Amino acid sequence: LHPKPLLMIPGPTPVPAEVLQALSTPMMNHRGPEYQALQRECIAGLKQLFQTEGDVLIFPAAGTGGLEAAVTNTLSPGDAALHVTVGVFGERFGDIARAFGCEVTTLAFPYGQAADPDAVARALGERDYKAVLVTHNETSTGVTNDLETIARVVQERGLLLLVDGISSMLATDLQTDHWGCDVVVGGSQKAWMLPPGLTFVSVGDRAWEAHGRARCPRFYFDFAKMRKSMERDQTPYTPALPLLFGLRVALRLLLEEGLTASFARHQRVARATRAGVQALGLELFAAESHRSPSLTSVRPPEGITPRQLRAAMRERGVVIAGGQGKMEDQLFRIGHLGYVSEIDILATLAALELTLNALDRPVPLGTGVAAAQAMFAADSE
Amino acid sequence: LHPKPLLMIPGPTPVPAEVLQALSTPMMNHRGPEYQALQRECIAGLKQLFQTEGDVLIFPAAGTGGLEAAVTNTLSPGDAALHVTVGVFGERFGDIARAFGCEVTTLAFPYGQAADPDAVARALGERDYKAVLVTHNETSTGVTNDLETIARVVQERGLLLLVDGISSMLATDLQTDHWGCDVVVGGSQKAWMLPPGLTFVSVGDRAWEAHGRARCPRFYFDFAKMRKSMERDQTPYTPALPLLFGLRVALRLLLEEGLTASFARHQRVARATRAGVQALGLELFAAESHRSPSLTSVRPPEGITPRQLRAAMRERGVVIAGGQGKMEDQLFRIGHLGYVSEIDILATLAALELTLNALDRPVPLGTGVAAAQAMFAADSE
Repeated sequence: LHPKPLLMIPGPTPVPAEVLQALSTPMMNHRGPEYQALQRECIAGLKQLFQTEGDVLIFPAAGTGGLEAAVTNTLSPGDAALHVTVGVFGERFGDIARAFGCEVTTLAFPYGQAADPDAVARALGERDYKAVLVTHNETSTGVTNDLETIARVVQERGLLLLVDGISSMLATDLQTDHWGCDVVVGGSQKAWMLPPGLTFVSVGDRAWEAHGRARCPRFYFDFAKMRKSMERDQTPYTPALPLLFGLRVALRLLLEEGLTASFARHQRVARATRAGVQALGLELFAAESHRSPSLTSVRPPEGITPRQLRAAMRERGVVIAGGQGKMEDQLFRIGHLGYVSEIDILATLAALELTLNALDRPVPLGTGVAAAQAMFAADSE
Repeated sequence: LHPKPLLMIPGPTPVPAEVLQALSTPMMNHRGPEYQALQRECIAGLKQLFQTEGDVLIFPAAGTGGLEAAVTNTLSPGDAALHVTVGVFGERFGDIARAFGCEVTTLAFPYGQAADPDAVARALGERDYKAVLVTHNETSTGVTNDLETIARVVQERGLLLLVDGISSMLATDLQTDHWGCDVVVGGSQKAWMLPPGLTFVSVGDRAWEAHGRARCPRFYFDFAKMRKSMERDQTPYTPALPLLFGLRVALRLLLEEGLTASFARHQRVARATRAGVQALGLELFAAESHRSPSLTSVRPPEGITPRQLRAAMRERGVVIAGGQGKMEDQLFRIGHLGYVSEIDILATLAALELTLNALDRPVPLGTGVAAAQAMFAADSE
């Protein structure tokens, strides 16, 4: 028997059994009444969890497709955009805008650091921008940006704010309407407890206005085509039915839990993970004030590569992630977003202890686990 | 109990139980070795069924996304393209090229007719084109174009040929390399026996050359980014895992059957469907010489709308499709591509007979069924 796998990467994330089962629902007519009811329920649930009265569109695509949709539906070639990035996924957002001919100014912060809202404000003072592109949670470094403050800075100047919320949504608060986020992009394989294959895109009033003027070419990801079909609870092309069957079940679970409880759950496992890792003498990578509730990025012990550590963890059945981009050889990452339990965290830390010992970086067995347990115990007091 | 549904629309098509079950496979790391083996097997199978030595790329998207990829990866704004259309999906292909700034000349044939290769040849003589866009099988009318001859005409002029093979592949022969089809687009929810959510795109050598010069903006659907990741059996963004789990199982079934048997199977059910419908005195819509093996388009009896007919069929548990676009009120369509059996056809015809009688358009019960049975009996002699 292969080791029973425990998936602890920041997406794809574990999917609850009832959601997995729903994926196997037999096909139906995507132009019939059962489908219309399915789509209606999904959109209503998404709007609640996006905290928006605006539209939420579902595209059959990875989150990267949602980011492309955000850019091409609101901007024109030559439009000036300020692109705020703190890692690999931030860079991708800017690359997309460049690919479609926008004039992109990049404001990059060092990997591991968060974006400084004051620096964003200063950059916005230097020239006229149409839009600001920002990543809420940077999956490559485990840093969560202070989106609320950044959004305020952008709002004060009346600019369009396009947000990559793929790995932040449901794990931390993202008040789409209240903070003035004009477009927010989510991805099904993150805290939504779903497999990859859908991207969710909220579109507020100002984004619709921008859409009317936006001349970036688009077809598949066009907001207006999607909204027009949605008026009849349909889609402009065949929807990815299995993922929608799963989405309905996942949304029911998430709405029953509620957003506040979901944020607290993510904070709890994140705090325990950090406590456990630090108790083992390992160094956290993300700046202390902006550590992500979705994942924890860690420097491996001296002389051990992330690859070695991950392979050894994998042999024990725990699948963790390595570094990305220029951090490939410098980080490992433990995902704890979505359907992750407290005991999953304890098991992961226990496996990490055994692994470090096996790799000749001995740690006292149980130390990391105990630190995490203490955190959980304190939380439940 | 609601009526046990029999899905007879031209996509989404019925999915075999073992494929549906595979969709529920727990998530895995899409950067790990198990995923790499999965992707390798899927690509190898797709290449066989695409009849190509070139690349086949998998994008998490509907088929419309694959059509957009075909255009944006091979053409530049201002490029002249001849767009051959015989229906709604043909029109969409041209709309995509226009949306990205290509100079599109449309050669449209009447709904129900096939494209005339001689007319294509004449049109190509009238000006310099870079590419020809053509739909192999038009799902809105039930017409299959003579792609082999059209491809020869295009090849003689050394032009690029972009083919929408979404509803034709596996139902009828499409010799990607041998006929010189530079890009062919497939969609998972058709004869692949899979749910919607994936588009498959073959890219031949000449298409790669064109890609090097193509300046249409693109990011999500970029061929080169996908190929680069595929060199490591990975993808540039998270793949739609459930559909790939299903694809592996469906490909094994399809490869075991073989292409020739698949084509014959589709011809058999198509012939029987047509015989049955005609025996009931109903008029087939598609030109006799180019009737589709994937679906059958039928004019409803005088005074009955497709909507009425479909609603009544639905009450008996048989889900058929209506007309599309300007044919909405003039056609109903019976899908018979993918996982459809001979007895599914007989059941559909039996339900149609009951329905016509219930709608006061009496037919002798069993007549359509008997005509189809006779066709099956003759086929198996």
